[in-house]
Amino acid sequence: MEPAASKGAAILAGDVRAASRLMRGLEDGDPQARLTLAWLYRASRRIPRVGITGPPGAGKSTLASALVGWWRAQGMRVGVLAVDPSSPFSGGALLGDRVRMMAHAEDDGVFIRSQATRGALGGVGATTVELIGVFDAMGFDIVLVETVGVGQDEVDVIQLVDTTVVVAVPGMGDEVQALKAGLLEVADILVVNKADRDGAERTTADLQAMVDIGPTQSWRRPIIATVAHLGAGVADLGEAIRSHGAWLDDQPGDRGRRQTTAAHIERISREDMGLRVRRWLENDPGGRALVDDVHARRQDPYAGARQALEAVVQGQSGDRPPNEGGDSASE
Amino acid sequence: MEPAASKGAAILAGDVRAASRLMRGLEDGDPQARLTLAWLYRASRRIPRVGITGPPGAGKSTLASALVGWWRAQGMRVGVLAVDPSSPFSGGALLGDRVRMMAHAEDDGVFIRSQATRGALGGVGATTVELIGVFDAMGFDIVLVETVGVGQDEVDVIQLVDTTVVVAVPGMGDEVQALKAGLLEVADILVVNKADRDGAERTTADLQAMVDIGPTQSWRRPIIATVAHLGAGVADLGEAIRSHGAWLDDQPGDRGRRQTTAAHIERISREDMGLRVRRWLENDPGGRALVDDVHARRQDPYAGARQALEAVVQGQSGDRPPNEGGDSASE
Repeated sequence: MEPAASKGAAILAGDVRAASRLMRGLEDGDPQARLTLAWLYRASRRIPRVGITGPPGAGKSTLASALVGWWRAQGMRVGVLAVDPSSPFSGGALLGDRVRMMAHAEDDGVFIRSQATRGALGGVGATTVELIGVFDAMGFDIVLVETVGVGQDEVDVIQLVDTTVVVAVPGMGDEVQALKAGLLEVADILVVNKADRDGAERTTADLQAMVDIGPTQSWRRPIIATVAHLGAGVADLGEAIRSHGAWLDDQPGDRGRRQTTAAHIERISREDMGLRVRRWLENDPGGRALVDDVHARRQDPYAGARQALEAVVQGQSGDRPPNEGGDSASE
Repeated sequence: MEPAASKGAAILAGDVRAASRLMRGLEDGDPQARLTLAWLYRASRRIPRVGITGPPGAGKSTLASALVGWWRAQGMRVGVLAVDPSSPFSGGALLGDRVRMMAHAEDDGVFIRSQATRGALGGVGATTVELIGVFDAMGFDIVLVETVGVGQDEVDVIQLVDTTVVVAVPGMGDEVQALKAGLLEVADILVVNKADRDGAERTTADLQAMVDIGPTQSWRRPIIATVAHLGAGVADLGEAIRSHGAWLDDQPGDRGRRQTTAAHIERISREDMGLRVRRWLENDPGGRALVDDVHARRQDPYAGARQALEAVVQGQSGDRPPNEGGDSASE
């Protein structure tokens, strides 16, 4: 049995330590880990992916924790991936939240992984989708990806999940406008958390107005009121996530989920090309001369990028398979 | 005169409206805007770039505002680029902060641009570095890029500035650990803001310990205490930024700044290849068949990405120049 297959088979058989080792390997950019993941990809089935996002302070970690509890009560095994440095899942939160998490942490029907600080150096370590791929292979029933609702990270994650839950809170004011411009259009389900606070009705009405003027689609985006720390509305949210999954099941050609596959291929291509270009710019005499030319403004960076792509594709780096090797490049 | 040159010349001559139009064009992915920027790149000089980042609540917007005031008092013209949705520069903040900004907004020695919600759909619109390129052409003396201290966006920005200021506050506790794992290692200057609060000495000592165990380098990272809303320590910070610039000037081969040029070329290459792969996956029969194969798990996504790169490079999309055209692809 080749190594990828034997390591992969252990994970398929439920070996949690082997899965953790694989995740670490992916984060470290270990090429063997990539081979194992590639093997596992064909041997495993895709599990439903739920993303939860929203601005800091919206209480999404508490909501995520409550949702995990609800799924567990349904008998489901749950993977949690926290891509949020302020999340209790990743250890950067208030004590109360962390205590709430503890119950889950000791439950072997829940596997929690934090990706909070990885990738902070812009490396080509594990991407969120690779870690999701390990959850697939571990045979969980669902995976929840929690992200802080800001910036490109969120967008990247949202493109890789099936169902995106965006959490708002009363009194957000301007922030609702920011949501409007960004996250709102990618939400499948909207939540008004802390719905026992003043202004909850106003926030709900604001969101409803935005949903109403948004593009018409066959999935009608629900707005769900929750008070996460009391558990209120959590079952409604769980049911809404299930309904969205059923709606996706009815899409011809699995259209909704197929997009995430395309996004996945695109991301690997992009990162791979970035890595190859970086190596060429750092190590090849032609690459270093190009950086000098652009740095001295004798050449513009667009022309420089064209030249770099051509060199990488046609040149000696072109015969190197994508994603081979770890991050030998330094910043 | 070709259009790029005539538009570019207007910006070099100080036409602020032309610069704003160019920034909008870049954000919209207008290919003509890219041509103008490429022309401008060779015609203008690079201005010092300062990044300011830190966790939400660290007061970095207030500090940024005070710093802008200090530079103005030195007679410098300042560009500000806010890549932070909660920044007063981008309109998503408390009224008090926004009032403080007003003075700057009406000062024609300060040009403020927000990039807070752009790119939220993962498009190939303006990147931060492109907007910085316009500031270069406008002939400002310095540009300040403010980002929220979380995630990949920060890393991307940090790679593109010369001097990175990381702002901490007393009582951060766990967050200092998060800084440690991520931002701290890329900081050139550390600030303890709200230094009149309890725990400031402890935070300073924690940071000092981290700096001491960090990699030895010829630039000794200073830790500066500020109380931004009172203006305390702001001159120290301004001087530290100046010192870091002088240190960069002394680097052989302009090594410190040259890295940002390489990062710039790499980013354009990566994004360009991502766009071309996306178009191929969406529009080419071979690309669609590939997505189907990977989606059905007959093929793994790494093999899929290799196939996509080969097709794009060798195939009909290969003759299309990079970065041509706007974002015709939809998510």
